Parts: sequence; structure tokens; C-alpha cells
Amino acid sequence: MGKNRKLVLAKRPVGPVGPETVSLTEEERPTPGEGEALARVRYLSIDPTIRTWMNDLPGYLPPIGIGEVVRSAGIAEIVESRSDRYPVGSLGFGLVGWQEYLLCGEGAAELQLLASGLDPLLAVNLFGVTGMTAYFGLLEVGALAPGDLVVVSGAAGATGSTVGQLARAKGAGRVIGIAGGPEKCAFVTGELGLDACIDYKSEPVEKRLAEEAPGGIDLYFDNVGGPLLDAALAHLALRGRVVLCGAIASYNATSRPAGPANYSNLISRRGRMEGFIVLDYAARYEEAALALAGLLGEGRLKHFEHVVHGLESAPSALNLLFEGGNTGKVVVAL
Amino acid sequence: MGKNRKLVLAKRPVGPVGPETVSLTEEERPTPGEGEALARVRYLSIDPTIRTWMNDLPGYLPPIGIGEVVRSAGIAEIVESRSDRYPVGSLGFGLVGWQEYLLCGEGAAELQLLASGLDPLLAVNLFGVTGMTAYFGLLEVGALAPGDLVVVSGAAGATGSTVGQLARAKGAGRVIGIAGGPEKCAFVTGELGLDACIDYKSEPVEKRLAEEAPGGIDLYFDNVGGPLLDAALAHLALRGRVVLCGAIASYNATSRPAGPANYSNLISRRGRMEGFIVLDYAARYEEAALALAGLLGEGRLKHFEHVVHGLESAPSALNLLFEGGNTGKVVVAL
Repeated sequence: MGKNRKLVLAKRPVGPVGPETVSLTEEERPTPGEGEALARVRYLSIDPTIRTWMNDLPGYLPPIGIGEVVRSAGIAEIVESRSDRYPVGSLGFGLVGWQEYLLCGEGAAELQLLASGLDPLLAVNLFGVTGMTAYFGLLEVGALAPGDLVVVSGAAGATGSTVGQLARAKGAGRVIGIAGGPEKCAFVTGELGLDACIDYKSEPVEKRLAEEAPGGIDLYFDNVGGPLLDAALAHLALRGRVVLCGAIASYNATSRPAGPANYSNLISRRGRMEGFIVLDYAARYEEAALALAGLLGEGRLKHFEHVVHGLESAPSALNLLFEGGNTGKVVVAL
Repeated sequence: MGKNRKLVLAKRPVGPVGPETVSLTEEERPTPGEGEALARVRYLSIDPTIRTWMNDLPGYLPPIGIGEVVRSAGIAEIVESRSDRYPVGSLGFGLVGWQEYLLCGEGAAELQLLASGLDPLLAVNLFGVTGMTAYFGLLEVGALAPGDLVVVSGAAGATGSTVGQLARAKGAGRVIGIAGGPEKCAFVTGELGLDACIDYKSEPVEKRLAEEAPGGIDLYFDNVGGPLLDAALAHLALRGRVVLCGAIASYNATSRPAGPANYSNLISRRGRMEGFIVLDYAARYEEAALALAGLLGEGRLKHFEHVVHGLESAPSALNLLFEGGNTGKVVVAL
């Protein structure tokens, strides 16, 4: 029947994921029962949240157990089926895990079948959790208003690159990215078309924000937390909004990270800082996908993937997110 | 014509207000011109925000200039009038300043006349900025919902004591105060009728919050900032709201205070942290005053003032707020 290779959590990481964090194990490939199908994983969606699931801390989903396959979204292809819902050859999106095969169907994983002909990279990026996060974070949590001055951190990353373009397409007055290094900044202003990009690795961020946003920041979309969040709070406009999407600056922290001391500007500037988890918007994913597809069709939105190959590369692909080693969405192709 | 004694800002304080911060000066009592009136200050409203106005930092109002009278809300009585708006003998509320006399009318200070017979202590507390802050902060910014578990810091203070009682009156499920010392905690559970009070000076706040709010905090009304804010964020319920009203823990800080490291819980718990300035609700003060008067009449709301005497005691009265030396609203009677 063949084997299923999978990466299981061997030891909870302290800091970045290392060789001891996961172990490659092999088991018999599972056999679908009545109402089930066997799916072969084709792409893994590498998201910062995976790192948080590796900690033994309460979160919006339970921690990954030791010995359990690493939880991960991705795309799988149905290769054997005893379920009418999952025809052989179809592609589906869901929590596939860092492994080669999984069962789906009643009592097993749920996959959402992709529209036929849809590029799976698009499905994992713009029409997946990444695009949904950008869409609902910017428009619902951030309540983007026409003319807003928008700043986005992690601007060359998966979510950030979509947020910046979407803000532009949806009527923001000025959109400024923050990214690390001259290549990424060139990508942000060039490929993505943002008005400016601040290189946090070589520029004084607070000073540059004051120059680029002299009237203050109306909407800060925060993917990283840490000192960049604090700098943005220092330049918040009256009734400015901070969308807390992630805090990758701290996910690998081994000591307690500092909080944003400038939070008190939320008082004098009547600001709002709000977090969200995109899963809460699952019932509205179709609405968002249609809107994003429209912008994509009009050429007002581009998508970028950073593809690495092979199941074994998943841990280093995850580390890329925290090292700033990627431009666009990190995907592992199996 | 007599004199006007006033306290002017002599030197910007570093830390608490000291003897060098203000100086008592004497000038000719001003004479009202056509359309003006002379008012004699009767009560000063001692509010934490006065300390922030003494810093040379941008805020929701400009800093008090060196040599200028210390800005302060209060109640004054019209003693001489050349204005139909201000009949002699009437009392008015406004930014009277730390002084004995002021001019009001066109081009001078604006006073809002009190309803005849209204206790001026009520006017400066429950029907003044303090009551308005509690009302709009809890109900509008915090969006109190029936059954909410509410925690309020500075629970024995001016705003906090009103917030706690108001939460109870407006259908909160459970209301927990945080205050400093056993006497204040006894006041909070006894006089104010809150369900519990945590003594931050002698109890481990995070542990106690976990005990008193096992399902998490739905609404945290924050008057103090600092470690208490961080502890509340650690125990935020799903979709919990943090109302940022003030940060007295840091107003006297001489070094940059730490930020709330647990802010990242706002992400996993879909929380919101929002600041406000009550002046933004000025157009709706009457609505709030009517609602508060109703509760007062029904005996469901009490008001407490800590009265000190004499203009010269204003600086030490201000320090009381930061030392936790008061129960209820601090007022200077002139």
C-alpha cells in the first residue's frame, strides 16, 4: 500500500525551529474507508502561526501535541476515493499537515475543493488564508476609509504584499511599506506600487515615519509587533487604527518581549488597536475571494510566491519567515 | 479692586509636582468689560490629566505654558457681571484654573451654568468630567453588554468608583475592582457594592484575576496603565475590550515606562484596546447627566469626594492621585 512520510513535533522549540524540533517518521499510508478519500499533499502553506502552535500555550487552536504531525494548511490532490464529495484528481485546500498523504472525509480532515483550473499557488496564497487575512484585516478590522494614510509592516511578505496593494486598490490616500533591506524595499515600491518603503534594517523608522506620514498614520497593519509597532504608535493620527495581525518579531523570542510603550498614545489620539483571527470570517471567504479575483482580473493585484521544494525543507521554510528570507508567500511544493 | 492670587507653572516637573513646580503670584483682580463677568473660584476639580498638561509634549490640549496659570476644571460663582448670560450669584463649571478669580464671557473663559440648587460637589464629580468619563468610557467605548465580567482599576478613585457602580447598575454580570490597600478594597466591596476587590499592593494580581475571572475579562476599564494593564491583558476573554482612560502609573515617570507585553493576546483573543478623550462626547453630556441623575435618584449610584482646602493645597492634592491618597473625587475648596 506504500508509505506516508510525515514530520511530527519531536520537541517544543525554544527560539527558531531546529533539527531537533521535528522528526521525519514513516508509517503505512492510510486506506480510505467508506465515505473517505486519500489525498496526496501537493503544496504546504507556510504561515507564521505554525510557529505559535508549536508552543505549549493556549491560543486560538490547541498546541500541536508532541508526536503529532505538524499542523499546516495546504493543498492536496485526491488520489483514491470512496466518497462522492472527493472525486479522484480534484484538488482541495485544508489543514493537510506536514506529510505526504492524509485521509479526508467524515471523521477525517475536511478539504475544500478548488474550482477546476484554479492555479493551486493562487489558492494557497490570494484565495487562501493569506489573502483572506489581508482582506478582512484591512477592510473589516482596520475599516479602511478613502484617503487613509496606510502603513504596513512585513510589506514584502505574504500578507503584507497583499495588504499594500489592496489598500492602494481600495482608495487609500498614501500607502507606505516597512520591509528589511534594499531589495525588498525596491520590490515594495516597484512591483507592488506602494508610495514609499522604509528599510527598518538601515533607516531610523520613527524619523522616516514622521517624514512619510507628517499628518500621522490612519491605519497601521501590523504583521511583526516589536519596535515597529511602537514606532507606528508614536505616529498615530487622530482616531488611528492599529490592526494586529501578527507579531513575528516575538514568535521566536526566548525571553518575554517588551510591550509597546507608546500604547498610551491611543488615549490622546483616540486610537484603537484590535486583533483578529481570520478563521472568524470563514463564512465570508467567498465574498472576499470574489472581490480579490475581480482585482486580479483587472490587473490591480499581483501575487507572489516563494516556492521551496520537498517535505524536509518545511522547517527551514518556516524559519525564512522570521529571518525575512522570503518575498511573497512561502510555499513548500511536495 | 482687590487682588487675584493664582498658581502659575514655574518649572516643568520631572516626576511628582514639587514646591518648585508652581509659584503663587498675585495680580490685580481683573475688571469685567461689557459682556463679561467676574467669577470667584469655589472648587477645583483635581484630575490626573492636569499632570500631563504640565509636560512639554503634544497632547489633546496644548501644554500649559511656563508662567501661565495651571489649567484646571472647577466651579466658580459669578460675583460681578456685565453679561446677561452670567447672573451674579450663579455657579458655573469650566476651565477655571488654579486661581481665585477669572473673567468669563466673550473672549474670556466659558462657564456652563449649573442648574439652580445643584450641589457643586456633584457638579464637579458625577455631572462633571469624571462622571462623563465613566459614562461614555464604559458604555460607548467599552460597549458594556449584559452579563459582562468587568474589571476596573483605580476602583476607589474618582472615575473608577463611578465606573464600578455604573457597570453594576447597567447589567454587568460580575464587577471586580483593583485598588491599593485594605481600606480602599473594603470601600470598593462595601460602599460601592462591587463583587470583589483585588489589593494590588499586597496580592498577586494575575493570580487573583485568574481566580475572580476564570472565564476571562470581557471589559477592562483602565485608569492606571503599567503592570495592571498587562495583567488584565493576560486574562482577557474572547472579544474582550480594554478601555484606555488614563495611565496614572506613568504620568510621573522619569524614564520611559514599559509597554504592555501581553498586548499580543489581543490577537488570539480578538480583543480591542481603545483610548478616548471625554471632550469628544461633549455634545452628549446632557444625555449622560440625565441618565446618571436617574440612577442617583434611585439610590443606585453614590458619589464620593475627598475635599482639601485652600488654593495652596492644589499641588499636593494633585499628587494624592498618584500616591493613591484619595478615595473618590479629589476637590480643592477655596
